[in-house]
Amino acid sequence: MSITTRLTQRLGITHPVIQAPMDTIAGGRLASAVSRAGGLGFLGGGYADDAEWFPREFAAAGNEAVGCGFITWSLRKRPELLAQVLERKPKAIFLSFDDPEPFASQVRAAGVPVICQIQTRADAIRAIECGVDIIVAQGTEAGGHGGARSTLTLVPEIADLIASQSPGTLLCAAGGIADGRGLAAALMLGADGVVVGSRFWASDEALVSANLHNAALAARGDQTVRQSVLDIVRQRDWPARYTGRVLRNELIAEWYGREDELRKNIGPAIERYAQAQATADPQTVAVIVGEAVGVIQSIEPAAVILERMISEAETLLARGAKLVS
Amino acid sequence: MSITTRLTQRLGITHPVIQAPMDTIAGGRLASAVSRAGGLGFLGGGYADDAEWFPREFAAAGNEAVGCGFITWSLRKRPELLAQVLERKPKAIFLSFDDPEPFASQVRAAGVPVICQIQTRADAIRAIECGVDIIVAQGTEAGGHGGARSTLTLVPEIADLIASQSPGTLLCAAGGIADGRGLAAALMLGADGVVVGSRFWASDEALVSANLHNAALAARGDQTVRQSVLDIVRQRDWPARYTGRVLRNELIAEWYGREDELRKNIGPAIERYAQAQATADPQTVAVIVGEAVGVIQSIEPAAVILERMISEAETLLARGAKLVS
Repeated sequence: MSITTRLTQRLGITHPVIQAPMDTIAGGRLASAVSRAGGLGFLGGGYADDAEWFPREFAAAGNEAVGCGFITWSLRKRPELLAQVLERKPKAIFLSFDDPEPFASQVRAAGVPVICQIQTRADAIRAIECGVDIIVAQGTEAGGHGGARSTLTLVPEIADLIASQSPGTLLCAAGGIADGRGLAAALMLGADGVVVGSRFWASDEALVSANLHNAALAARGDQTVRQSVLDIVRQRDWPARYTGRVLRNELIAEWYGREDELRKNIGPAIERYAQAQATADPQTVAVIVGEAVGVIQSIEPAAVILERMISEAETLLARGAKLVS
Repeated sequence: MSITTRLTQRLGITHPVIQAPMDTIAGGRLASAVSRAGGLGFLGGGYADDAEWFPREFAAAGNEAVGCGFITWSLRKRPELLAQVLERKPKAIFLSFDDPEPFASQVRAAGVPVICQIQTRADAIRAIECGVDIIVAQGTEAGGHGGARSTLTLVPEIADLIASQSPGTLLCAAGGIADGRGLAAALMLGADGVVVGSRFWASDEALVSANLHNAALAARGDQTVRQSVLDIVRQRDWPARYTGRVLRNELIAEWYGREDELRKNIGPAIERYAQAQATADPQTVAVIVGEAVGVIQSIEPAAVILERMISEAETLLARGAKLVS
């Protein structure tokens, strides 16, 4: 059994599920596991500040076809990395946060599909102008960086925009999708597929320490928050429109709402963060998961996660049709 | 054709769609139109500060069976209103915001179904303790007052909670649902039905001025914001955990983030608001719609809205099953 959509047909994959290119924790092992299981795995190129990361993680992916993601504003600081990645023939390039050009054109010129993640209608209009192949409408539920709109309203609004302006562009939903219910719901909203982050973060193959995994398993969706405290402490110069959703912890409780004061007195916080990283203490370091953490109860192999998601969605889709009489 | 769920069976209605009891704008004409069309309409009892409102609007609903909603913390100031409303044999009572007791017990004792709207998992646990018949999981997408969680993650998390603790309790999704896509998605997430606000706000029968309707038709989802400025100006003493989603306007732009200053200098703002109400100026008065405003393109009769929503959802549910091969 499988779920066939425009996304599976366009990319030649079995399941309409893309694994989010989660910065640093989505390495070759996770990306290749997702691709091998029938989805599309992505290396989390992230801030593009470690040139050695790519050769190592592409090697870890072996012969499996995987894509690569970038934080666009950060890639701008080291644009040569994109050409190096394109030489490795990625299955697709996934650009998030900031204007997609000139990278989108460069990727298209290499014959590689361009995926562009957006948070607002204006972003989507720009992505269409740039001729991207797939727009990912990301809701605020998502773990990690994102915007203010919710997936449930952003996806249909962008679906209407695409239908009227660029019907050949595909649409995926991101943010809050961690099981077959979320996948089936996204398909009803007009998406051709989904991007899944937190659920694959909570997989055996993700480069996440056991401490942080355990903190997430113990958490409910109400314990996450969108904030900038951790970006300040980690000295990541994010544009103000993007905040990061993580589990609330002691560091955030201390500084949330007092960000200017934190900026002026950053030294001790940086030192504290470095020490906490050494022990992976979830009360200080970022546990980057979204609201969907509340339905995640176990750490499992990515293939098991993906297969269950598809099987659940198939059951729900079949049952949904039977509600109509 | 119709969509049959536990909600339609339990309440004896045709369509699994509840019209949100929107304060002041959901009168007898709207509520009866929704009930007549096969959903369940609600009078927006709101702050319960106008005893004459209920007899008038129940009369306007005629013989149609409708429910009545209350803002629970405000009902607490005038609890005798509940008994007066129960005498009119409402189809259900819809309690939102604050602990449902002692009202939930009073409603159950009258043999009337209790619907309780919640914004967090802790709220849902309390609603189950109170023995409510239907829990409405309301996402932050919603227009008007609400919390921080998104519908897409809150609904499945509460569905899991209900399945383990109180499987006979029904679950509805609220926030961001304005068409058949949202309805079909909510059913996939595990809801037995949906609560629809903004889409019925944008109906012929809603007690909304043409100016405000036009402002909403011109807006996109990115133009709404959760804020407290308008509560301060309207002197509504909302508990801090609930903020109101409305269209951004000049008044909000002026005071957002400077709420303490506004409180200290409230006189001129109150006067300005009163003047703007006289002309229904959307740059000052509250245009209370949610993120789903971005998919609302017309003001229509409530029955037309409801019928299209059902027909769209039926088509999507049937098509969804065909994606599985």
